[in-house]
Amino acid sequence: MNQKERIFIGDDSFMELVQFLNQPFSSCFVLVDENTRKYCYAKIQSLLPKHSLIQIQSGEQNKNLETCALIWAKLTEANADRKSLLINLGGGVIGDMGGFSAACYKRGISFINLPTTLLSMVDASVGGKTGVDFIGFKNQIGVFQEPEAVFIYTTFLKTLPKRELTSGFAEVIKHYLIADKKEFEEIQNSEPVLESLNWQRVVEKNVKIKSAIVEQDPHENGVRKALNFGHTIGHAVESHFLKREGHELLHGEAIAIGMLAESYISMKKGLLSEEELKRTATLIQNYFVLPPIDIEAQNDVLTLIKQDKKNTNNSLQFTLLQGIGNYSINNIVEEGLIIDSLHYHNSLCK
Amino acid sequence: MNQKERIFIGDDSFMELVQFLNQPFSSCFVLVDENTRKYCYAKIQSLLPKHSLIQIQSGEQNKNLETCALIWAKLTEANADRKSLLINLGGGVIGDMGGFSAACYKRGISFINLPTTLLSMVDASVGGKTGVDFIGFKNQIGVFQEPEAVFIYTTFLKTLPKRELTSGFAEVIKHYLIADKKEFEEIQNSEPVLESLNWQRVVEKNVKIKSAIVEQDPHENGVRKALNFGHTIGHAVESHFLKREGHELLHGEAIAIGMLAESYISMKKGLLSEEELKRTATLIQNYFVLPPIDIEAQNDVLTLIKQDKKNTNNSLQFTLLQGIGNYSINNIVEEGLIIDSLHYHNSLCK
Repeated sequence: MNQKERIFIGDDSFMELVQFLNQPFSSCFVLVDENTRKYCYAKIQSLLPKHSLIQIQSGEQNKNLETCALIWAKLTEANADRKSLLINLGGGVIGDMGGFSAACYKRGISFINLPTTLLSMVDASVGGKTGVDFIGFKNQIGVFQEPEAVFIYTTFLKTLPKRELTSGFAEVIKHYLIADKKEFEEIQNSEPVLESLNWQRVVEKNVKIKSAIVEQDPHENGVRKALNFGHTIGHAVESHFLKREGHELLHGEAIAIGMLAESYISMKKGLLSEEELKRTATLIQNYFVLPPIDIEAQNDVLTLIKQDKKNTNNSLQFTLLQGIGNYSINNIVEEGLIIDSLHYHNSLCK
Repeated sequence: MNQKERIFIGDDSFMELVQFLNQPFSSCFVLVDENTRKYCYAKIQSLLPKHSLIQIQSGEQNKNLETCALIWAKLTEANADRKSLLINLGGGVIGDMGGFSAACYKRGISFINLPTTLLSMVDASVGGKTGVDFIGFKNQIGVFQEPEAVFIYTTFLKTLPKRELTSGFAEVIKHYLIADKKEFEEIQNSEPVLESLNWQRVVEKNVKIKSAIVEQDPHENGVRKALNFGHTIGHAVESHFLKREGHELLHGEAIAIGMLAESYISMKKGLLSEEELKRTATLIQNYFVLPPIDIEAQNDVLTLIKQDKKNTNNSLQFTLLQGIGNYSINNIVEEGLIIDSLHYHNSLCK
């Protein structure tokens, strides 16, 4: 089954969910956090067969092995067997951690994702990456495992705080930057008001872009690295701020910083014109108000980048933009240029 | 690549190991416990490229997520990237836990197994099952992931205490019981002296039996269940004794009890003749001195069986013998008969 065949988008696809759930699962579990329990669970509860809720605490700081152990304990206590189903109702944290928990429980039970954030609709629910953070490193422990299906109801977006919605929009911008110049220009020419967007269309467009890339290279040996644009620096920035209580950034905010810095690096490497860099920076600034990266943070970010999963043989490898709407993988970037790119980001902060 | 192509048996296959290690891994780690470090590591050290040792404590009681976290922390500290290799030098605990750790580190790095016990040579190194125990349940958390290769040096068997060697022999008996009547009769007619066996031949035979089954059904949906003979009760017995400090059983000892009990059940279900049951029991008793299962233990074993990964829809499903050298899967067994089978085992204990 290819990616598209198991991704159902739109509020009229509740039927497909009901149909899917008609399969003879021996038991059914719904993974929620306090927010998705409150705002999303009620919208689908009546569609579900007999099930148990597993509730965890929201937030990236809880995406760890300890929370997985809690999920595994609940499944064990409920005598969940190999024919059980786990329904992940939430954003990227629930999807990644629920997927990993399902993939490892008794060597693998089925799971489906019902993403509730923009980020998880356009990014996390497609591609089979599961995992949790470990001693300060993002997604350090995980496996590749596709959900049986993904059901995307954009109506859940109405339950999101504006900051969350904007955060998810970072991945939308990324997709257009690496793969769709026309869409990039369309949002560039629109008012930066997220509420007025046609989300059904946006999600369909983005799932298509991501699926097309992932299908070519599920295990990230080549073209899938396109999706890492903004993420080498972005993940390090996110990990850094995760350690600074009260200053945590949302994933998309960190990726926005990463995209600014890596666009600068693309320009310095001669892959992006100064004018394209400016257009990119302007668009990102229209949506995001981002903190500067001070000297201490810069050093930590550098250390974290050296630990990045995507590096091999101790050279720092980046995916960069090759003009707007195109990308270039496996670019070796020097440490000094990374620091320069953070200075560039700082120069944009007011 | 099929199972056999990546399994190298015999002390003359050091060449193949050296050749394998010639691949451009970015870094190399050897997972050992205090025993394999002392008795086995020296035998292969000179063949290995530059590497780091990761030492863990031996024993089933350390096959858990906490030890995985220790392995993951060591890999992280050493900046291990996705092109790293983990060499599992040890028995089933090292192989299962090392395999799981490798499969989940940065969503998967390569690993190879160098089994050092009879059990891991004939059983654990073939079949792609990885995992750790969790809140009292054997291999509750894990994934299916094949090692890149398995190198079996029977010379390591000389480093084993006799009790360990005998324990491993339980899986040999199991393979013959389910799949090779001729070999069963051959050991039945030999003196029960393990030291005099031709291990190269025994290992080759057993790897062949197991590989043939696993290749037909890697994810245990059908025929692979043949290998579970003796393990439904055996695993529960093992889990139970694991909780009784000072009375722990080795895996093969628990499986020996499981095989006795499940042979009795096979007889009661009309699948095995009384004479065949007697021959099976005599052979097992020739090698093993086993403890009885008291009433408290019987109840715990029953509870644990109900939690078995292999059960679905709340019926207790067993793989039984259908004559010696053949098996029957998916037999539903009543709780009372399980208790009876433990009484039968007790009647054999002196």
